[in-house]
Amino acid sequence: MINTNKKILIVGLGLLGGSYAMGLTDAGYYVAAIDKNPEAIKYGLEHKIIKDGKTIVQKEFVEQFDLVIFGLYPKVFVDWLRLYQSYLKTNAIITDVTGIKTWLINEIESFLREDISFVAHHPMAGKEVYGVENADKNMFLNANFIITPSNSSTLEAIEVVKEIGKILQFKNIVELSKEEHDEMIGFLSQLTHCIAVSLMSCKDSKHLVKYTGDSFRDLTRIAKINENMWSELFLLNKQELLNQMELFLKKFNTLKECIEKDDLDTMKEIMKVSTKRREYFDN
Amino acid sequence: MINTNKKILIVGLGLLGGSYAMGLTDAGYYVAAIDKNPEAIKYGLEHKIIKDGKTIVQKEFVEQFDLVIFGLYPKVFVDWLRLYQSYLKTNAIITDVTGIKTWLINEIESFLREDISFVAHHPMAGKEVYGVENADKNMFLNANFIITPSNSSTLEAIEVVKEIGKILQFKNIVELSKEEHDEMIGFLSQLTHCIAVSLMSCKDSKHLVKYTGDSFRDLTRIAKINENMWSELFLLNKQELLNQMELFLKKFNTLKECIEKDDLDTMKEIMKVSTKRREYFDN
Repeated sequence: MINTNKKILIVGLGLLGGSYAMGLTDAGYYVAAIDKNPEAIKYGLEHKIIKDGKTIVQKEFVEQFDLVIFGLYPKVFVDWLRLYQSYLKTNAIITDVTGIKTWLINEIESFLREDISFVAHHPMAGKEVYGVENADKNMFLNANFIITPSNSSTLEAIEVVKEIGKILQFKNIVELSKEEHDEMIGFLSQLTHCIAVSLMSCKDSKHLVKYTGDSFRDLTRIAKINENMWSELFLLNKQELLNQMELFLKKFNTLKECIEKDDLDTMKEIMKVSTKRREYFDN
Repeated sequence: MINTNKKILIVGLGLLGGSYAMGLTDAGYYVAAIDKNPEAIKYGLEHKIIKDGKTIVQKEFVEQFDLVIFGLYPKVFVDWLRLYQSYLKTNAIITDVTGIKTWLINEIESFLREDISFVAHHPMAGKEVYGVENADKNMFLNANFIITPSNSSTLEAIEVVKEIGKILQFKNIVELSKEEHDEMIGFLSQLTHCIAVSLMSCKDSKHLVKYTGDSFRDLTRIAKINENMWSELFLLNKQELLNQMELFLKKFNTLKECIEKDDLDTMKEIMKVSTKRREYFDN
């Protein structure tokens, strides 16, 4: 258990940052936040999600904290660190919640202070709503907490970040290399979003609403998408995502050819593989 | 209300045929069935889903029925009619539950007896299980019942088939032309199954199971597929399905190009359209 004397700073008090703050405050930690939006800080203070909050970044505030959790988009996070890493306490531990890791870790480790320990992690949870006012400390109960340790991660810092996952009640706490993480996320999350967005936008389907059953709704649920966050994530995992898109395209085109050529045998073979592999994911 | 003196025959006592039989028997109709599988007939009789049942097709049995509902695959249904339409009662009404209509109606109307009224319909409901033992008269509560009247449908027969939909408690009872039906089903159902199957089979993803969240599960739920039924449905709606696959491919390839070329503006534009269109389907 991390000593509850440790002071925790959340930078970016949105849905995730707010949910982290809530869970950690409830567990007895001193949690404060920085967010450029005064409404977010006001909400956090009023709802006792945080004990202190600022809308600007000041050395005398930042240097109090032993652990800093960044709830920012990847590029904003990197820019913040470039500007303000000199404000961090000596030997501080930092972590982030972004959905891409190879680019992020490489970028940060190219300039990070030697005494700072960085342990990237990815909470695989989300909602289709935003902002601290939607924060929910129970949103992680069924989610995976993936840690991607790297050169700048001390063993102690890795344990601290794992402890955060436990306190927030994540179901599984797992370690992956940054490359494994990005392949996984490219396939399971980014490719699926590309597919959903393409399906939803390829045809004006308003006239079909009343005939729509579960299949189409299931395939397009994630087509309601935050275009700023996802376009950034796609480009920061560009090569891996393109690899996954190629894999999918190849199979989709094979299936299309089967239909064109009345090739029943190959089509059934693909469907059998699909049925068999889907069984891994029954739960 | 259809006169409960009318006698109803179900040909093909599987999941759908069995659920129809259950609902119609409960509503007070005399319902019998033909299925080549003796177990299905035995189950139907033992569970009082049907009052009579046969495993072979005989004139003296078939000619009793005013309404015949076919719960068969499309080609098997057409073959059955070719062989046995002479057994049907004079002025009998027939209907089916298959998922493609243009090919089916054209085929059947090329040889159908003049006195028989055919009203094709499509109950947009299903389960990932099969057989009369999984029949459930409540499976239609949220589903659409789509009628595709054609040259051989009398007005009286259309009303009778709509009445079946009401008795079975479908949520909406709607009329479409056979072409409108096949475009709709090509996009909403067949294309989504092609996508799910391609995504599930394009990569051996067993090593990713423990990281899988809702998005991937939602997109692949229908990838567990009955390869015999779906490959037949795909080929019987070939041109329409290929059109829908082309539409999707074009958009997916545009998105891929945006990622390759760092074209943020076009990518965000696609995502905005996708988000806006998904709102039609919120419910």
